[in-house]
Amino acid sequence: MTTPPPDPLARDAGIRAFVHLPAAAAAAPAAAAAPAAAGEAGLTAGIKDVIETADMPTALGSEHYRGRGTGRDAAVVAMLRAAGIRIVGKTTTAEFAYRDAPATINPLDPGRTPGGSSSGSAAAVAAGLVDCALGTQTGGSIIRPAAYCGVVGFKPTFGLVPTSGVMQLAPSFDTVGVLAKNVPLVARLAEIIAGLPALTVPEGPPRVGVLPEHELTRCEPEMVGALSRANELISAAGGEFIALELPVGLDRLRELHALINAYEGARSLAAEVAHCRAQTAGLIERGLRLEPADYAAAVAELEQLRPLFDDALRAVDVVLSPASLGLPPLGLTHTGGSDFCQPWSAARVPAVTIPLRPAREGLPLGMQFTAPRWQDASLLGWAAWLEQVFAGA
Amino acid sequence: MTTPPPDPLARDAGIRAFVHLPAAAAAAPAAAAAPAAAGEAGLTAGIKDVIETADMPTALGSEHYRGRGTGRDAAVVAMLRAAGIRIVGKTTTAEFAYRDAPATINPLDPGRTPGGSSSGSAAAVAAGLVDCALGTQTGGSIIRPAAYCGVVGFKPTFGLVPTSGVMQLAPSFDTVGVLAKNVPLVARLAEIIAGLPALTVPEGPPRVGVLPEHELTRCEPEMVGALSRANELISAAGGEFIALELPVGLDRLRELHALINAYEGARSLAAEVAHCRAQTAGLIERGLRLEPADYAAAVAELEQLRPLFDDALRAVDVVLSPASLGLPPLGLTHTGGSDFCQPWSAARVPAVTIPLRPAREGLPLGMQFTAPRWQDASLLGWAAWLEQVFAGA
Repeated sequence: MTTPPPDPLARDAGIRAFVHLPAAAAAAPAAAAAPAAAGEAGLTAGIKDVIETADMPTALGSEHYRGRGTGRDAAVVAMLRAAGIRIVGKTTTAEFAYRDAPATINPLDPGRTPGGSSSGSAAAVAAGLVDCALGTQTGGSIIRPAAYCGVVGFKPTFGLVPTSGVMQLAPSFDTVGVLAKNVPLVARLAEIIAGLPALTVPEGPPRVGVLPEHELTRCEPEMVGALSRANELISAAGGEFIALELPVGLDRLRELHALINAYEGARSLAAEVAHCRAQTAGLIERGLRLEPADYAAAVAELEQLRPLFDDALRAVDVVLSPASLGLPPLGLTHTGGSDFCQPWSAARVPAVTIPLRPAREGLPLGMQFTAPRWQDASLLGWAAWLEQVFAGA
Repeated sequence: MTTPPPDPLARDAGIRAFVHLPAAAAAAPAAAAAPAAAGEAGLTAGIKDVIETADMPTALGSEHYRGRGTGRDAAVVAMLRAAGIRIVGKTTTAEFAYRDAPATINPLDPGRTPGGSSSGSAAAVAAGLVDCALGTQTGGSIIRPAAYCGVVGFKPTFGLVPTSGVMQLAPSFDTVGVLAKNVPLVARLAEIIAGLPALTVPEGPPRVGVLPEHELTRCEPEMVGALSRANELISAAGGEFIALELPVGLDRLRELHALINAYEGARSLAAEVAHCRAQTAGLIERGLRLEPADYAAAVAELEQLRPLFDDALRAVDVVLSPASLGLPPLGLTHTGGSDFCQPWSAARVPAVTIPLRPAREGLPLGMQFTAPRWQDASLLGWAAWLEQVFAGA
C-alpha cells in the first residue's frame, strides 16, 4: 500500500468514486499506510450516498435527488464522528442501491466495473482516497464491489448495525457494512458501528467448510482457479477442509431472496416510480406483480431456514465461497452477478471478502468467508488469520 | 359524527394535533360524514411527523429538527398521493416516536393525554380535522392513542406496509398503520398502503379468543367493566368465547420487547444523544448498557415464539384484549401504558382497536382485536362486524 497523493479531489476526477467531495477534503489527505495502527483520529471515511449526513447531500444515486439535504446524520455516521473519524465525502452508488450503475471506474482496471451498488466506497478505498468507507448490502452490494476492487468488505449479521437514516431497499435484508484495505481496519470500524470486541486473531488453523461441488458450476474459470489456490494456501498453513451439508441448495435461497427483494423493493421505492432508471423500473414492475400471499409464504420459509443454516455453518469455523462469479465484467453498465452473495444475505449471516492476488499478473479475486448469525467477531478473527496466509503467498 | 367546521387551522389551535398545517388546509376542509363512501379524491389525511413528506418538514417530534426538510416522500405518502388522498399536514408525535409527549390534548377530555406516540394523528381524527391519519407503532403507538381518543386504529402485520422514509426506532417492531373514524375507512386506507383486498364483512358470528384470567389483573376497573360489556354485546350477537392457550405468558413477550426495543432504540438514535428529552435519554442509556449477546438471544427467542403465537391465534377468528389499561391518564406528561400492545407488537401480528362507548356517560375504551400474522384482511372484516355490534349497543 502506498501513501495517497496529496490531492484526492484531483485523483477522484479520474475514478469518480465520489458524488460529493468538498474541497476541504483535498487539504487534509487520508492517513498513510498501516491505518489500523494510526488511531481513529487519523482515519478518513467515505460514506455511501444512501446513508444520510447532516452536512452533505444524500442523493441516493438518483439525478432526481441531486443536492438533496436531509439535515440529519444516520446512526452509523454519528457513531463514526463520535469516534473521531473524519467524513470526507459521499461515495457513488448504483441508483437506489440497486443495479443502475454510476460512472465510477474500477481503479485496478479502468475498463472494468468496480461492481455495485457500493461502487464508490470500494473504488475510493482501492484508490487510497480514504482509509475506509461505509457501504450497504441487500443482495451483494458490499461483498461484490469489494471483491472486484481488491479490498476487504464486511457485511455484518443482519440487525447488528443500525440502519436508521439509511435508505431502505428491502428491509428483510438491508445491512450496513464496511470496506477497507485490510481486516484489522475493518474490525476496528466494526467495533465502532457494531459494538464488536477488539479483534482477536486465533492461533489457528481453521476448519473451513466448503460448498457441495455442484453449487460451484456457475463459477468462471478464473474463480475456479482462485478457489483452488486458496485451498492450497490454507491447507499448507494447516487448515482442514470439511464438506458442508446445507439444509437446502443455495438456489432455493436465491429464489426466496429474489421474490422478497422484488416485493419489498417495489414498495420501498413507491415514491420513485416516475423518475427511476431501467433496472430500478424493472424491479418495481416485477415486485408489483407479486401476490402478498406468496410474499408472506417466502418470509415464513426463510424464517424457518435461517436457524438451519446457522446450524450447518456451526459445524466449522468459517465457510469458504466465491465472492463473485469471476473477474469484474468489462464496461461500466453491468455491476456483475451476486449469485454467491444473495444466499448469505437471505440467511442474514455475516460475510467477509478477502482479496486473493494471483500467483502471476492479473486481478485479485474475492474469497468470501461466512459464519453463523452473530458470530461476527469470530469471523473477523479468522478473516485476519486468512488474510495473513494469503499475504504470505 | 358531525361535519367538521370550516377552519381546521383555527380549531387545531386548541387541540395542537398538528405540528405543521399550511393555511391552504383551512381553505378546503375535510370531507363530511361517511368518508368511506366519498371516494379517495375527497379524503384528507394527516401524516405523523416521523414520516417524510417532500413538501412539508419532518421534525420527528424534536425541537432540534424543527423545520427540517428531507425532500422526499415516504413510500406510504407516495401511495396516498397516488390514490388521490390530500395530505393536509403533519401531526404531532412524542419525541422520536417514543414517550416524551407533545402538547396535544385529548379532544374527548382536554385534561387528559391523547396517548402517544401518534398523539396528533389520533387527536386530529377524533376532532374531525381530517378523515384519517397515518401513525407508527413500535410498542403501542397506534393502538393506545386511537383507544384514548375514541377512534379506530390499525397496526398491520409487521412487514406488510413499507417503512421506507419513516424514522426508525426499533426496526424489529416499527410498523406504519392507520387511524380513522370507522373500520371501513381504515380498510380502504389499508387497501392503498398494504395492498389488502377490499373489505368483506363476514356474516358472523365470530369465535373470539380471550386471554387467561391472570393476564388481565393489571387492568383498571373501567377496563374490566368495558371488557365485560364487550363480552355481553358480542355474546348477544351470537359470538362464541374461547379461552386462549398461549405458548408463553404475555410477560415474556413484554420482557423481550423491552430488551430489543432498548437495544435497537439506543442505536437507531445514536445521532440524537446530545439533544433529546428525558424519556428518550433514558431509553438510550438503558439500551447502551445491554450486551449484544443478550440482544441476539432475545431476537432468536422471539423468532421461535412468533410461529407458536400464530398457531395459538389460529384457533379462533379474533382475539380480544384491552387496548389500554384503562382511561387515558390525567395531564399531558404521561402518554399511558402499552402493556397490552407490546406483546402483539413483539409477535408482529395485526391489531385493531375499536372504541366501545359506555352505557351511560363517560369516555370510550378501546377493545383490541388481533389475529395471526398476514391475516390482516380477515381481521379487518371481523372488526367491521364487531364495530356494528358495538354501534348498535
